[in-house]
Amino acid sequence: MSFRPDPRLDADTVFIADGPLSQLRLMDDARFPWLVLVPRVPNATEWIDLDGASQRLLLAEINQSGALLRQHFAPIDKLNIGALGNIVRQLHVHVVGRREGDAAWPGPVWGAGTRRSYGADAPQLASRLARALDALPAKTLPAAR
Amino acid sequence: MSFRPDPRLDADTVFIADGPLSQLRLMDDARFPWLVLVPRVPNATEWIDLDGASQRLLLAEINQSGALLRQHFAPIDKLNIGALGNIVRQLHVHVVGRREGDAAWPGPVWGAGTRRSYGADAPQLASRLARALDALPAKTLPAAR
Repeated sequence: MSFRPDPRLDADTVFIADGPLSQLRLMDDARFPWLVLVPRVPNATEWIDLDGASQRLLLAEINQSGALLRQHFAPIDKLNIGALGNIVRQLHVHVVGRREGDAAWPGPVWGAGTRRSYGADAPQLASRLARALDALPAKTLPAAR
Repeated sequence: MSFRPDPRLDADTVFIADGPLSQLRLMDDARFPWLVLVPRVPNATEWIDLDGASQRLLLAEINQSGALLRQHFAPIDKLNIGALGNIVRQLHVHVVGRREGDAAWPGPVWGAGTRRSYGADAPQLASRLARALDALPAKTLPAAR
């Protein structure tokens, strides 16, 4: 019944909150403001293989994650959004706040160097992010202009 | 009036077709089946800063690009979707077909090794992809199940 992310994802990330489609998790890597969305859809591996409503829901959650990063980790110079899954096949989407000169700049964060854990601060940071998420003004996609 | 991608994108890619929102281009790298979508939206840098309708249109174009890769470059083991833009800020989304054991496997393609051009075959491949795109059964997001 209860959703569990792939053990490798589980080991590298900390639970923040359950969104409408996905579990939102914090990558436990203090080098980058880095969120991971894991849709609670059994056996999903590709975003484009989700049904249309779920695809759009995931996109809305990416919007929310980006807003959360910008609000909580300002300043963010660039967002990086990635759905790779070459190693962990369970569908998951990375939303990463990048700063010029960060540990992987201007390359991608995936596979770059060695993760640096938040250590004992991780659960507290995840709790603060959960509260900040609740306080975000809009939870859905902006309407078409 | 006429849209032009950033000169660095332009130099590394070949025009395939204009979709409803984005220009679809082939990354001129024979190591990977690799498409790039460049929304024709002035000054856009982040997917989540597009208006909602454009965001969903881009998602539909990603669906189409993934279907094209699967059809034309079968077998594809995994799709990689990435919006990075750390170097070229103009909004562009990569849709890459990955195969186990390819030149960057299981790492990301971005920043991996040296691009290997299709050379004189590039325009012909782009034309074949444009025809295959026209022949794809569905051009939009699947309806919600």
